[in-house]
Amino acid sequence: MTVSPLAPASFPDLPVIDGVTFAAAAAGIKKQDRLDVMLAILDEGSSVAGVFTTSATRSANVLDCQRKLSVPSNGRAAILVNSGNSNAFTGKYGEGSVAALCAGVSDMCGIYVSRVFTASTGVIGQPLPHEKIVAKIGELRDAQDANYLGDAARAIMTTDTFPKGSTKIITIDGRSVKIAGIAKGSGMIAPDMATMLVYIFTDAKIAQADLQALVSQHNVNTFNCITVDSDTSTSDSLMIGATGRSGVDVTGNADFADALHNVMLDLAHQVVRDGEGATKFVTVAVTGAKTDADARLVALATANSPLVKTAIAGEDPNWGRIVMAVGKSGAAADRDLLTIRFGDILVAANGWVSPDYTEEAGADYMKRDEITINVDLGLGNGTSTMWTCDLTHQYITINADYRS
Amino acid sequence: MTVSPLAPASFPDLPVIDGVTFAAAAAGIKKQDRLDVMLAILDEGSSVAGVFTTSATRSANVLDCQRKLSVPSNGRAAILVNSGNSNAFTGKYGEGSVAALCAGVSDMCGIYVSRVFTASTGVIGQPLPHEKIVAKIGELRDAQDANYLGDAARAIMTTDTFPKGSTKIITIDGRSVKIAGIAKGSGMIAPDMATMLVYIFTDAKIAQADLQALVSQHNVNTFNCITVDSDTSTSDSLMIGATGRSGVDVTGNADFADALHNVMLDLAHQVVRDGEGATKFVTVAVTGAKTDADARLVALATANSPLVKTAIAGEDPNWGRIVMAVGKSGAAADRDLLTIRFGDILVAANGWVSPDYTEEAGADYMKRDEITINVDLGLGNGTSTMWTCDLTHQYITINADYRS
Repeated sequence: MTVSPLAPASFPDLPVIDGVTFAAAAAGIKKQDRLDVMLAILDEGSSVAGVFTTSATRSANVLDCQRKLSVPSNGRAAILVNSGNSNAFTGKYGEGSVAALCAGVSDMCGIYVSRVFTASTGVIGQPLPHEKIVAKIGELRDAQDANYLGDAARAIMTTDTFPKGSTKIITIDGRSVKIAGIAKGSGMIAPDMATMLVYIFTDAKIAQADLQALVSQHNVNTFNCITVDSDTSTSDSLMIGATGRSGVDVTGNADFADALHNVMLDLAHQVVRDGEGATKFVTVAVTGAKTDADARLVALATANSPLVKTAIAGEDPNWGRIVMAVGKSGAAADRDLLTIRFGDILVAANGWVSPDYTEEAGADYMKRDEITINVDLGLGNGTSTMWTCDLTHQYITINADYRS
Repeated sequence: MTVSPLAPASFPDLPVIDGVTFAAAAAGIKKQDRLDVMLAILDEGSSVAGVFTTSATRSANVLDCQRKLSVPSNGRAAILVNSGNSNAFTGKYGEGSVAALCAGVSDMCGIYVSRVFTASTGVIGQPLPHEKIVAKIGELRDAQDANYLGDAARAIMTTDTFPKGSTKIITIDGRSVKIAGIAKGSGMIAPDMATMLVYIFTDAKIAQADLQALVSQHNVNTFNCITVDSDTSTSDSLMIGATGRSGVDVTGNADFADALHNVMLDLAHQVVRDGEGATKFVTVAVTGAKTDADARLVALATANSPLVKTAIAGEDPNWGRIVMAVGKSGAAADRDLLTIRFGDILVAANGWVSPDYTEEAGADYMKRDEITINVDLGLGNGTSTMWTCDLTHQYITINADYRS
């Protein structure tokens, strides 16, 4: 698989987060000799929070994580993730797989089962060979190292063409607080939530309930604002662990919230940049809607429209299709108040194409790797921004032959 | 453009509908020397009804037709349709174009402006060269012939690879009643309503209000149940004209309603069969939902899912993606009560793949041209059926380079 043309120049240099260690291994779940399992272990005193897919057919792993996060628990914590098989729609057997994974980590690492979180990503509906993963837990435990977060990023990849990482280090009252996160995701990406898998770690000190509130809040404008193909995964999970080892209490701290938001947004954008077959990174910014909800309808209708996305793939400034998407969105709209811009280029206003707009200017803009579509509805103060990619032949190639 | 592999063997032999005549001409709207305008003229005493796109950015033509149908009017009626330009999002100029077309027909054919209906289909946002069409009205008037409905079907095509026609002749009280219809549509097809353009004529006798109620009712389970790409057109229009010349009053007649339903469903299916790039005709039949509305959510989520549609294109029996679509639909669903069948083949039940299901049987079924996906939610009596096609490289090819 060629690396996406929209990939960042290099994987970031992720800092050590005091209080959490990682290891990755090749368990041979779908393919041999590739990293497909990662285990993270968080020291005692860590807060763990998460947000998950709202799919009605979400995986056994997701249900298990949601259950465990809803009750207070103590001690060290572990996150075990495999790629190559999603363990979704595998019935009671799938629930058994999750139990086996959790028991394995609990027994071999000395961590309460209630503090063992799992995720599986890959094909739906096939039995997870959990015994292959359990057989690797001893190796994963013995290899734990604070420097291995990059390996973990590689182990959770499926159709991803590059590993995704992001970090932010801030100073609060003269002391350093570190955040580092990884993500995977490429197809089956749509709100809510559109992450596939995301793991973020910080040495900040924050209570579980506050951490949960913070990550839920920032999920709304980051991972829940990206779409590749409008298809919502059954396994989407974002988890965050805060070890507290920096000694800095970040409860209510705006700088920390900003830094966390930045890491989440950066990872969300990287998922779009690795959208299956993507050649363009597209920002759809909607303003002037009657309400924020209306703005989101328009942003989503535009970002998910196959006709808008194929036009972008073809570098065709076909703004009529944006008018179509606004029209079908269900949001209040008035032809004569609608304004459409490509970046700073005024395309349409007052119910028609702008007299200053030229097809050449539009076509030229469309050649860029990064495209911004601005839609102003002229009706109110509602806003919404979504990020997506184009729809190309490569998307069809990847997905018309996924399992062979 | 090669004809869709799913096209009917031949264009049907459409009967003459007494009281309505047709003509088609080449006005050079987008390309030279191809039929791109059609004019139908209905005799005095005809009832005319219609259903239209709900898009907030619908075309000036659609708005004009909706206005005219909402007030009673008399005399002969005309329907003027052009392809090559949709006259949508062309501001006040577009409204002027519609006025010019209506005035032209009115003056040259002696028909009240309130009885002249227009539709335009093609690219959005470009000025309609209405003077080219007006210049052809005399020719269209002089060429009127009851036998030219087939030519009209060809004149309204855009990216269609075959003209679409359907007919049904029934006998009521020993007298024959004829229905004949044409349609165009290939991309930008989604409810509501998903027709692009449809014109149906009958010699039945029925009052305007009854005809409107009938066509609105049968639209729900025909054109509003098809989707090619989830994108709703700004120009979708279905109009029906009943000349009354058979002398048979069909008010409340169930046989007539059935016949009309059949013609509408046949035309709707033909639109899907000509879906841009389609190689498979797909029926998604949902049963056992809590409500009909829930059933429709599941049917639509499945029929619009890029991952389901690309799997079908690749002849991959990837039923896990159907589970995903059920999960994301927003409808009430329970993993352990869900049943999925490919045609008669039981694929998944009781929360997992059926023990009797084999990948070979699924793969074999996927090789067919016509595929039925049955989803039973096991929760209630709600049902919904949608028709769609697969998502192929050809769709990308057509739409990534539409305007050049």
